Amino acid sequence: MNHYELLMTLGIIALAYLSYINKNVNDKIKENCLLRPLNINNYSGFIQVEASQLDSGTSAWCRGESNVDRTCKFHYLCYNSLNDDFIFFHGPRSMASGLPQDRFSPALTDLSSVPNHNTQYFNFVDLPLEAMESFDQIFLLHGNSFIFNRFNPSNLMHVFHDDLLPLFHTLSEINYGDINSSDSRLLFFDGHAKLDHFHLYKLFSSQIPLLKSDLNKSGNSLVCFERAFIGLSNATTWYQYGFQEPQGSVRNSKITARTILLFTDYLKAKLGIEKEEQSQSRLNGILIGRRTNRLILNEEHLVMALARDLHISVQLLHLEDTSIKEAIQRISSTDVLIGVHGSALILSMFLQKGALLVEIFPFAVNPEHYTPYKTLVSIPGLNVKYLAWRNMERENTVFNKSALAEFGGIDHLSAEEQNRILDSSEVPLHLCCNDPEWLFRIYQDTVVDVHSFISAVRKSISEDLAGERDTPQIYPAKVNKVVCRKLMAVDVVKLEVNWQQPWNVKYLKAVIKEDIKYEVWIQQAFVDNTKAWILNTTGYIFEGEFLADSTYFVWVRCIINNQIGPFSDVTIC
Amino acid sequence: MNHYELLMTLGIIALAYLSYINKNVNDKIKENCLLRPLNINNYSGFIQVEASQLDSGTSAWCRGESNVDRTCKFHYLCYNSLNDDFIFFHGPRSMASGLPQDRFSPALTDLSSVPNHNTQYFNFVDLPLEAMESFDQIFLLHGNSFIFNRFNPSNLMHVFHDDLLPLFHTLSEINYGDINSSDSRLLFFDGHAKLDHFHLYKLFSSQIPLLKSDLNKSGNSLVCFERAFIGLSNATTWYQYGFQEPQGSVRNSKITARTILLFTDYLKAKLGIEKEEQSQSRLNGILIGRRTNRLILNEEHLVMALARDLHISVQLLHLEDTSIKEAIQRISSTDVLIGVHGSALILSMFLQKGALLVEIFPFAVNPEHYTPYKTLVSIPGLNVKYLAWRNMERENTVFNKSALAEFGGIDHLSAEEQNRILDSSEVPLHLCCNDPEWLFRIYQDTVVDVHSFISAVRKSISEDLAGERDTPQIYPAKVNKVVCRKLMAVDVVKLEVNWQQPWNVKYLKAVIKEDIKYEVWIQQAFVDNTKAWILNTTGYIFEGEFLADSTYFVWVRCIINNQIGPFSDVTIC
Repeated sequence: MNHYELLMTLGIIALAYLSYINKNVNDKIKENCLLRPLNINNYSGFIQVEASQLDSGTSAWCRGESNVDRTCKFHYLCYNSLNDDFIFFHGPRSMASGLPQDRFSPALTDLSSVPNHNTQYFNFVDLPLEAMESFDQIFLLHGNSFIFNRFNPSNLMHVFHDDLLPLFHTLSEINYGDINSSDSRLLFFDGHAKLDHFHLYKLFSSQIPLLKSDLNKSGNSLVCFERAFIGLSNATTWYQYGFQEPQGSVRNSKITARTILLFTDYLKAKLGIEKEEQSQSRLNGILIGRRTNRLILNEEHLVMALARDLHISVQLLHLEDTSIKEAIQRISSTDVLIGVHGSALILSMFLQKGALLVEIFPFAVNPEHYTPYKTLVSIPGLNVKYLAWRNMERENTVFNKSALAEFGGIDHLSAEEQNRILDSSEVPLHLCCNDPEWLFRIYQDTVVDVHSFISAVRKSISEDLAGERDTPQIYPAKVNKVVCRKLMAVDVVKLEVNWQQPWNVKYLKAVIKEDIKYEVWIQQAFVDNTKAWILNTTGYIFEGEFLADSTYFVWVRCIINNQIGPFSDVTIC
Repeated sequence: MNHYELLMTLGIIALAYLSYINKNVNDKIKENCLLRPLNINNYSGFIQVEASQLDSGTSAWCRGESNVDRTCKFHYLCYNSLNDDFIFFHGPRSMASGLPQDRFSPALTDLSSVPNHNTQYFNFVDLPLEAMESFDQIFLLHGNSFIFNRFNPSNLMHVFHDDLLPLFHTLSEINYGDINSSDSRLLFFDGHAKLDHFHLYKLFSSQIPLLKSDLNKSGNSLVCFERAFIGLSNATTWYQYGFQEPQGSVRNSKITARTILLFTDYLKAKLGIEKEEQSQSRLNGILIGRRTNRLILNEEHLVMALARDLHISVQLLHLEDTSIKEAIQRISSTDVLIGVHGSALILSMFLQKGALLVEIFPFAVNPEHYTPYKTLVSIPGLNVKYLAWRNMERENTVFNKSALAEFGGIDHLSAEEQNRILDSSEVPLHLCCNDPEWLFRIYQDTVVDVHSFISAVRKSISEDLAGERDTPQIYPAKVNKVVCRKLMAVDVVKLEVNWQQPWNVKYLKAVIKEDIKYEVWIQQAFVDNTKAWILNTTGYIFEGEFLADSTYFVWVRCIINNQIGPFSDVTIC
């Protein structure tokens, strides 16, 4: 019962967040008039078929332990827009592998990389194959369809973190590294229109992605997918948005610098961005400016001071009037990226090695509590420096009590609550998504204290990078040709063991940083008595309480840079 | 330490079994002269390439929690026959997803469906990409290669259970149901020659399967796979061979009648077997005969008695001089299949609904301890009857003490041990694979007691089948349009809740066996107080301790044939 109630409570929180997202999305649509004309029934991929052509019914193959990590492949999965449901048609040739005992607790898979969010659940409705005849029309989409939800497609941080990187990872797994293989399309099932960043998603598919609205056919119709894949990987996500606990980095995230680098290389190549020659003479920087809120009120002073005191030539970059391609191009070759905490900073993943990200936090906002970009650039091997600068001076902040609540206004709150917020000097930890104190503070404008800022940046620039490398785990191969011989003396038995170094070691010269070590295990046969030695030779004469009439089992394994290789096959002595 | 020792002990058992298998395999090779001429370097799929063409290095994507359930996809996995190792070349564009922390404990994946067998482990050796230049020649195999080990390819039971069914399941998952898609080949990495049943494996691949020996290139060469898939599913296996505990059916096996039927249909279609018209007049039967050991010494009497007493017309079938195709064709249309416990009985999976399998066990062999075929035909939905008949009369058994040990001879044992075995009337539970008492008893010839046998068969034939059906799990869809209204009276508050039946119910008439039920949950908001009702209407007025000024959350879900559908979205009252 408790579990269930928790679920419901979370559901309500999640719905609140979604309504917040939807509001923003709708605003954007109005702003940009991006609603595409719908060519219902004319989309080139749809082919009208008879029910008899799909008489093998639906089949499903799922992998994974829960909706969070489960992926499913379907043959002839169908969708009915009238009921807004996917359908599994059970026929005598339907296969179903890996379906969980209860696919409603809470769902079969997640449609988004954001885990276990109750607006992102995928399931299907069961029908007998015979019921297929009852539908008005059946349209078939040939080839591979990859179906998922964009989580918040109007916010650049969400676009990259929740969608594009997971898409890159999932598609490369599906197609053995070939991201946009010829026979596959994306289908956004989130219900949003194309929106601003559609062109970025398009880079991951050789065909134009479909929207959910493209599946709206007249009457009670079916759209069936020859092959559908569902389940966006969350292996690359590094941040959770605070639905169940205050926001923060994902524990045990599997994101690596390699993945980021391959992703940014892919995206730059697709966008046609070429590597720029750099003038090494002086540092250059980019200040990401905002136009309506969360402003830096003394941008120009700051830029001047950076030039004067640190010889950093800073250019302003406004995402409102810069294409993503240009923004990425410029950020890729800058030395210092500066911006107030906000979604544009997701582009810091394009920073080059040795660059510095400076994230500015308004008054009363603790940088340690909002770390999506710090976590990102701190991934070992990216080698990007990070500085959080926080306005600690109440007099340097400018707030707008009367703004709309979603932009931080607090006029709608009780006088008591308003005063409490105004008096507070730090937003307490909170859950997503509508905490008024958080919104009030994060939308503040800031006069950056130039002296404090310059001094912090100077320090960061001069600091050495830890220089961690995202090195592959290279293990020694199996130790071969282990030979063991009993040396019998009058009063003592010794075991002489010799072996060969693993065959791959001779190719690892450049990788090996310390002595090659060997671990030797000797066990008296069928006795619970095993001893182990660490050596740096390929042979040794062991002395101990060995018995002349006992049998001994010997195993050897090699250790290189603390990477422990596999044991040799057993040798009997 | 203990775990490790166990592993080693099992290893020794496993090796013993493998040497037993190899012996049989070699015998078969000698018998059949089936060693194929090797066209080294001439196999059409191999293309010689330069290291620079593989400069993206190796990539891997793995799924699963342990070597037993893990599958891995590779791009540019290579193999070096000189060291008999697969190689992962680590380059700057290598991806590695889902690799476990320690892939040597005990392995990355299993190459066979037989789980965790230490002769069936897959791993790779790490090399830096630069090392690729050091190899003499590089051959590339384009397309998809599915790499696995046949476990015991000369034994028909092993061929079907360990290899063909798992292959069918895995390939259908990989290719969305398309078993032998055009661009994929099988590679048997077990090291055996083609052997007798190669033609059966060939049915699962559009290209001729490769043997491990095909990868032997001259010098220190590499064979690299454009795309390799490793990890044979064990979702279809239903029997374990007694490596760690006495043999028996797999607990929680996921094999279903549907899978068996789809598999046998596939195989029959591939072999060109057409459904035979059946003469319904009288029952017909097949007695699988053996030629060298484990004989039924009174075959003819038995056949006559079956005809005379039960009007079953029985034909003999010897696998030694019948093609598999013919054997399957005949078994597919028989009513009664009779045979001594042995691998040929795996063909009972081709029995039609209502047929009977009669398995004969020699003296002192307890049918309950050896149940691969009983487990198979008892899969719910196959609807095949099963009868184990055991020779209980010592005088009806004929043994051969002086046979080779692997065929049950016991002359090599101590007189004491020989006498113990001869006096025993039941082989005790034992592990695989060389238990002398088991081998002694299972290779006995038997004079079947006709009276006892006929009487048992008569009883089985007359018994009704349980008639279990392998029905799909059809769940009701979500309950929609839940409306709740507070009815305020002077002294009592009632909640009136109405809803619609799930939209798929109207298509399920033929499936629904009992009343449609609804479960209604009502929770007082933010109070740990939830009540549930089961109803068979689509509306109800609930009375209880409801409060006028409280808020209530209402959920409804539908139950059909005990299958519980998903909850409606929350309705607030």
